[in-house]
Amino acid sequence: MGGIAYLVGMSKALPHPGPEAIDLSAVLDALRDPIRRAIVLMVAEEGERRCSSFLHCTTKTNLTYHVARLREAGVVRVRVEGPARIVSLRRAELDARFPGLLDAVLAGTRQDPPLARLVETA
Amino acid sequence: MGGIAYLVGMSKALPHPGPEAIDLSAVLDALRDPIRRAIVLMVAEEGERRCSSFLHCTTKTNLTYHVARLREAGVVRVRVEGPARIVSLRRAELDARFPGLLDAVLAGTRQDPPLARLVETA
Repeated sequence: MGGIAYLVGMSKALPHPGPEAIDLSAVLDALRDPIRRAIVLMVAEEGERRCSSFLHCTTKTNLTYHVARLREAGVVRVRVEGPARIVSLRRAELDARFPGLLDAVLAGTRQDPPLARLVETA
Repeated sequence: MGGIAYLVGMSKALPHPGPEAIDLSAVLDALRDPIRRAIVLMVAEEGERRCSSFLHCTTKTNLTYHVARLREAGVVRVRVEGPARIVSLRRAELDARFPGLLDAVLAGTRQDPPLARLVETA
């Protein structure tokens, strides 16, 4: 069964909005949640990360939900590699579409002591 | 009864978060709604406006709700003057707390044709 899940995982490309379809309401909605902002900050600082590396932030179910919200809004890209999901920031596309927005949100997130601690302990 | 409402209106100062209490999650939550972004853009361009001048955007009930959401998040200041509510942007406080955020969101809102039209017809 692990083998089947592995194969299914391999073949499944998750849907992402194209660069022109990234919507400001959806991006702000995705970023309004502090856990999602912490995830974005960690990915921003390290290029890409396994989804499982965020498990110190919240439960697995919540994490799956939060990463899906970020992906559907166009904030992150999620790649399926066998059983792992690799998360990266769509920085160039976001910066092109909404200049300055991501940096302002990341700076605000860094100022928040509980969130900054989540990122440090990652 | 109109007279009583007038007097009550006069004496009522609406609650606003102090500059240090403005929270990023609350600000992003307030700004994720397109009607609220249109209101913020109109106030940004004109300094201050009567709440009733936004009635072309939505119904009166919705407008009351949206302006309250913006006020509670610390995005706008609302002053009661007799029967009127005067809305202004807390730009300096927002810019000090989250540099670049408001400008990025306003620029993104200006790019959105339906919202830009709402602002033009104001």
